[in-house]
Amino acid sequence: MDFSPSPRAAELSRRVRAFVETEIEPVEPGYQQEITRLRESGGDAWTPLPLVAELQAKARAQGLWNLFLPAGHEAGYAERFGTDGGVGLSNLDYAAVAEQTGRSFLAPLVLNCNAPDTGNMEVLLKYGTDEQRATWLEPLLDGRIRSAFCMTEPDVASSDATTMEATAVVEGDEVVINGRKWWSTGAGSPDCKIFVFMGLTDPEADRHSRHTMVLVPRDTPGVRIERKLTAMGMYDEPLGHADISFTDVRVPASNILLGPDRAFEIAQGRLGPGRVHHCMRLIGLAERALELACRRAISRVAFGRPLAKLGGNAERIADARIAIDQARLLVLHAAWMLDTEGPRGSLAAVSQIKVAVPTMAQQVIDMAIQMHGGAGVSEDFPLAAAWTSARTLRLADGPDEVHRGVIAKLELKKYL
Amino acid sequence: MDFSPSPRAAELSRRVRAFVETEIEPVEPGYQQEITRLRESGGDAWTPLPLVAELQAKARAQGLWNLFLPAGHEAGYAERFGTDGGVGLSNLDYAAVAEQTGRSFLAPLVLNCNAPDTGNMEVLLKYGTDEQRATWLEPLLDGRIRSAFCMTEPDVASSDATTMEATAVVEGDEVVINGRKWWSTGAGSPDCKIFVFMGLTDPEADRHSRHTMVLVPRDTPGVRIERKLTAMGMYDEPLGHADISFTDVRVPASNILLGPDRAFEIAQGRLGPGRVHHCMRLIGLAERALELACRRAISRVAFGRPLAKLGGNAERIADARIAIDQARLLVLHAAWMLDTEGPRGSLAAVSQIKVAVPTMAQQVIDMAIQMHGGAGVSEDFPLAAAWTSARTLRLADGPDEVHRGVIAKLELKKYL
Amino acid sequence: MDFSPSPRAAELSRRVRAFVETEIEPVEPGYQQEITRLRESGGDAWTPLPLVAELQAKARAQGLWNLFLPAGHEAGYAERFGTDGGVGLSNLDYAAVAEQTGRSFLAPLVLNCNAPDTGNMEVLLKYGTDEQRATWLEPLLDGRIRSAFCMTEPDVASSDATTMEATAVVEGDEVVINGRKWWSTGAGSPDCKIFVFMGLTDPEADRHSRHTMVLVPRDTPGVRIERKLTAMGMYDEPLGHADISFTDVRVPASNILLGPDRAFEIAQGRLGPGRVHHCMRLIGLAERALELACRRAISRVAFGRPLAKLGGNAERIADARIAIDQARLLVLHAAWMLDTEGPRGSLAAVSQIKVAVPTMAQQVIDMAIQMHGGAGVSEDFPLAAAWTSARTLRLADGPDEVHRGVIAKLELKKYL
Amino acid sequence: MDFSPSPRAAELSRRVRAFVETEIEPVEPGYQQEITRLRESGGDAWTPLPLVAELQAKARAQGLWNLFLPAGHEAGYAERFGTDGGVGLSNLDYAAVAEQTGRSFLAPLVLNCNAPDTGNMEVLLKYGTDEQRATWLEPLLDGRIRSAFCMTEPDVASSDATTMEATAVVEGDEVVINGRKWWSTGAGSPDCKIFVFMGLTDPEADRHSRHTMVLVPRDTPGVRIERKLTAMGMYDEPLGHADISFTDVRVPASNILLGPDRAFEIAQGRLGPGRVHHCMRLIGLAERALELACRRAISRVAFGRPLAKLGGNAERIADARIAIDQARLLVLHAAWMLDTEGPRGSLAAVSQIKVAVPTMAQQVIDMAIQMHGGAGVSEDFPLAAAWTSARTLRLADGPDEVHRGVIAKLELKKYL
Repeated sequence: MDFSPSPRAAELSRRVRAFVETEIEPVEPGYQQEITRLRESGGDAWTPLPLVAELQAKARAQGLWNLFLPAGHEAGYAERFGTDGGVGLSNLDYAAVAEQTGRSFLAPLVLNCNAPDTGNMEVLLKYGTDEQRATWLEPLLDGRIRSAFCMTEPDVASSDATTMEATAVVEGDEVVINGRKWWSTGAGSPDCKIFVFMGLTDPEADRHSRHTMVLVPRDTPGVRIERKLTAMGMYDEPLGHADISFTDVRVPASNILLGPDRAFEIAQGRLGPGRVHHCMRLIGLAERALELACRRAISRVAFGRPLAKLGGNAERIADARIAIDQARLLVLHAAWMLDTEGPRGSLAAVSQIKVAVPTMAQQVIDMAIQMHGGAGVSEDFPLAAAWTSARTLRLADGPDEVHRGVIAKLELKKYL
Repeated sequence: MDFSPSPRAAELSRRVRAFVETEIEPVEPGYQQEITRLRESGGDAWTPLPLVAELQAKARAQGLWNLFLPAGHEAGYAERFGTDGGVGLSNLDYAAVAEQTGRSFLAPLVLNCNAPDTGNMEVLLKYGTDEQRATWLEPLLDGRIRSAFCMTEPDVASSDATTMEATAVVEGDEVVINGRKWWSTGAGSPDCKIFVFMGLTDPEADRHSRHTMVLVPRDTPGVRIERKLTAMGMYDEPLGHADISFTDVRVPASNILLGPDRAFEIAQGRLGPGRVHHCMRLIGLAERALELACRRAISRVAFGRPLAKLGGNAERIADARIAIDQARLLVLHAAWMLDTEGPRGSLAAVSQIKVAVPTMAQQVIDMAIQMHGGAGVSEDFPLAAAWTSARTLRLADGPDEVHRGVIAKLELKKYL
Repeated sequence: MDFSPSPRAAELSRRVRAFVETEIEPVEPGYQQEITRLRESGGDAWTPLPLVAELQAKARAQGLWNLFLPAGHEAGYAERFGTDGGVGLSNLDYAAVAEQTGRSFLAPLVLNCNAPDTGNMEVLLKYGTDEQRATWLEPLLDGRIRSAFCMTEPDVASSDATTMEATAVVEGDEVVINGRKWWSTGAGSPDCKIFVFMGLTDPEADRHSRHTMVLVPRDTPGVRIERKLTAMGMYDEPLGHADISFTDVRVPASNILLGPDRAFEIAQGRLGPGRVHHCMRLIGLAERALELACRRAISRVAFGRPLAKLGGNAERIADARIAIDQARLLVLHAAWMLDTEGPRGSLAAVSQIKVAVPTMAQQVIDMAIQMHGGAGVSEDFPLAAAWTSARTLRLADGPDEVHRGVIAKLELKKYL
Repeated sequence: MDFSPSPRAAELSRRVRAFVETEIEPVEPGYQQEITRLRESGGDAWTPLPLVAELQAKARAQGLWNLFLPAGHEAGYAERFGTDGGVGLSNLDYAAVAEQTGRSFLAPLVLNCNAPDTGNMEVLLKYGTDEQRATWLEPLLDGRIRSAFCMTEPDVASSDATTMEATAVVEGDEVVINGRKWWSTGAGSPDCKIFVFMGLTDPEADRHSRHTMVLVPRDTPGVRIERKLTAMGMYDEPLGHADISFTDVRVPASNILLGPDRAFEIAQGRLGPGRVHHCMRLIGLAERALELACRRAISRVAFGRPLAKLGGNAERIADARIAIDQARLLVLHAAWMLDTEGPRGSLAAVSQIKVAVPTMAQQVIDMAIQMHGGAGVSEDFPLAAAWTSARTLRLADGPDEVHRGVIAKLELKKYL
């Protein structure tokens, strides 16, 4: 057992941290203010500000681009699309990097490592045909377009993914798509050109063999962004979350991923790494919140003493430190399980972090908000948005309760 | 000891509940959508929609208007401005009414019982001169104008109110006002015409005798709304929260409330009832969240069973019921203490509810959000906004930590 | 609504408090040391020390005896057996008294108000024949004997009381009893002469009409105290908890209470008040723990300051104060519900306190233990025993989970 | 980074686990019953039952003896006293072993790895003179005698160890010892022959240079075991906790460890590994509790279903699994920090586990107790004793609050 990061993970996470701290964090407040100004004045807050492209170019020049690309699947892409070293990282090594990208809401986009693009790119990498890869994966790796994942539906409990009702019916060499999908993250951006759609194809088949994943270009007739959703009041520009209707949408059967009725097969492989990424970013966000809380605690004075010396504030900081450190180790362990045992063998480990980390982050950030007083809930600090990220992740990719069910089932099975 | 409400409280709260359920809750979603549409299209989301005035007229016609007016101080106002029965209510009786107004974010405004107008009206009622009352109190009671309370400052820990730095200097028959105030709730509305400003007058005096409260009309030269603040991403239109600068603002000395350096004296009397109102509204909001959670739990199906039958959901509903009922009793008790022991004698009781109720509401609403899945964090349900109300009240009117300090001090004093 | 206690409740609880504080609390440590000495030396720790009889006589002389007797059912007993005023108390009034008896583990016994004697006496009062009352109720009211309630069984999940397997078979004019019962509180005392036994009589009947309650004198052949149980390591002398076997035990059919198969009918009426008593005593115990915590916090010095000034200690005291006050109101409300709505109408209210109060008390006492350091877990303070009382009440009279189920069912029913 | 245990750790922990499961766990209930029988009959529950020596011989024969001996300090002892492989383990490797010894309250004693003997042996190993080692360390390593650590005092807040008042005055070639010490674990055993005493020598010196550690043989005149303490009602035979008075006790100055006034220097080095051991044993205990909870959840039926299918039980099992896994990783990490950074560099890491693990274990065990109903608090399962172990460790070796203070101080220092 050895808790020191690999040299590559240590070096990359150090460089990403430096990039985020020196290039991104200083421009965050201005970015947020400009978004606010645009939103309040009826302007376009959805097209990424020019700053993003500038930062992306800078990151890419330093090789801090597409670092999410998984070892063993890179097929030359890591080399062609700028990943430092030209070789993909293990889940464990990337986890250390993802933590640093989580510090800023802008960083994942700037480093081309944001959800759901990373998951969609992985799916194309693993399951895409050469044509699918050429058409969609390469521009995604190049940062020219963005993508969305259309799975959750408003009318069914999507926590039970087998209940999905939107249809993807194979008719000859076409697939006909109908239904409603929401919480399609990324679809708020005008750059979002491709949707990975999951629909019901074969209602009579076994529960996990009914659904198909299809690539649906955004501009296909019948696709309509009904509205952009707010999560706890926030639009999360420039990516956002859309509520999308699909009405008699027709795409070629060659847009099917892997094959009809194989959506769950794809989903399984996709979700493990995605959850590790999400959780590691939240660890980074919780670290940032704790850092802000500490800085506030020593600089703000009330009743004649810095906040750090008042009541339970110091104990709360200690509890936050413990909570973050425990959670980080759990995520790193899950990443290592993914690397060593694969998706099946790490099922419980991944469900564990999915339950533990968002709740931990929510609590740490809530503490940091409280330490900031009114400023904490305002846009002057990244804390309100950070809290919302943590809160929504208790629902996204499976609610806590479903993951607890998975863990309990595997735990009880040991004694059956 | 008797836990049955007085006949008047029972009757009024029943009528208010019926009004909120039949007149306001059904129009809530449409109202929210229209605000969203205006906000997204760069329209004016700050002028109350015509619907508000219609509902206000209806409420007033039924006597459900200005019900907050306190017994013993009504001076004919309850009669003139439509309070049902023409006589003010005790804190205890009004608490039952306030709970029902808390169910909907629109209801307090519709019933002319919203913060901070209620607190400002009480201050004018108790401490205003005849002229101050005629000029500001009457239009407020009439619902023609709105008001804000300017106390919190961005640059000092306003949890320790004695640190406030904005100045209100008496120069001859004028008061000169300088400084910055934020979280001035209500100041987002174009109808908000009067600010109750609290400023430093006499820095050398005793800590609680340095500050003065002054009436500052919004259109006085030197007053500038710098921006509207979001609380956890929400503007809370049409009242909102403003960040306001005051630069060499001059008002007549007759605008001083009660007298120079007597701001804390006023604040003490103002805050007790205000905290009871806030807390009772949160009780109502938590009840609404629990109701929504129950309805969702029995109607939504996952894994072949309604959510109510899955995992710990039923236990969570039970815990929410217990938490709400405990908290309600605590608030009613604090209201009764205010009625029987006055502000000094109920200091600990009021601080207790200020700590207990927002945290309780935050947890119950969080549970309801989780039960709703993605819909819970969206604008399709009032839950996200409800959560924000609860969260911000852990900071507004004194953060939890300060109130815990008050309670502990009084508790430990018993043994000193 | 009125939160002031009735004059009688105020006066009695004041007098009981004074009695407990001046007569019982000072002798507690000596009593505990003597029990310890007897236990360690192999002596008899189960016969109440002479002190108990002396205190009982003193309490009785002051009318502080059998105060649990319920209004409306006293049938002259309150007058004959010394209850102050000669008339029984409402559940609400007795609740205030029970709180004060909860401060000391000895007080309920001294005031003849301890569980399960109170519940057994109530059963005899409500459902006993004249003969049953003369034989068992009167000596119990007189404090000459004690009783136990034999319901919980080791081999079935007694949280579902319908699963009880021990049998009470009616054979002619006899009842034949077989089976094993444990957690029969009170059966450790040599003074315990009568058991209220609940057994299966009619396995084919409806789930709630299968069981019978029978009076079983302890010295009946076939009754055997197998062992005394420890609860979290404590024997709770002199009453204790026994594990009892019944082998072909025969008693006259006239020992049946109310009638064959009517055990659940009796249990329902018995449990409501019993749970209120338990919970109010825990409120008193939590108050005592908080008092001890406060005294320690101001008198013990570490790092140069009293504990009250260190870290989160003051905030923890505030939280304890809030938790106790909320819980007390909830219990008083449940008692009032029992008085006004009866056992059926107060089902949810009673389950609520059964969930809320022991957990609250457990937390408050745990905090007080922590404030005392090593002394807190020792026998030098009553805190370790207090904690155990709270912990076991999360299981006794129905585990938390079952009560949450009752509450949730009734809550969800509102929307079905 | 690599989460797989070293081959030696894997093999030893597997063998210890097997030994504990096959040799110790099966005899636990009988052992406990015999202790109970002895206690209740006034017999001697303090002399270890013959079974212990038999098990010790078996463990020793398998090399599972003194495994705590630290790498690099074994000086031939590991070889001479039976440690498997004859070479000490790193903190990280031993941690894996310690987890397995924690499953049973008997196992540490059987493997000669119990506190405080391990800590005392380490002190002698690191700081003892040859004579001190020959006289005390060797018989301890041989399991012929036991030891106690006399630090905590009843009259001062021992959480601030600098306040200790008992004296160790150097007079010529003697040390004169006076004062009272309690919570001297191990001193209940008649085999306990040596006390490591910490006393005030030089009251005027710097706070951390006033105290001296001295070896005091138990049979020195003036040493008196005043009583055995219960922790939450439990004596923890056969080791126990004593309250000891020292009256004009004289020992040769050669009994001083390291040198006068150097007690804190010794304490620092001693406490890090000791806390890791304590915490890892609690991890093992929590695992055992979870295992018992799972077995109960699938075998016990109520309301027609196994407990695992009722309400929130499965979710609670999942939460326990997460909590244990997080905590284990944190402890292993702290052990690794001790190995790589030494006591100073791992200060925060060790304080973190000291806060996190006992609270975690307390909660997991509490859940397991609840799952067992009344049986859970009885002596029929090891859960009540397990809970007490976890609870007392929130006080022993520094209360939670002090450790939170250390963590917060180091955290805030990063930004000063």
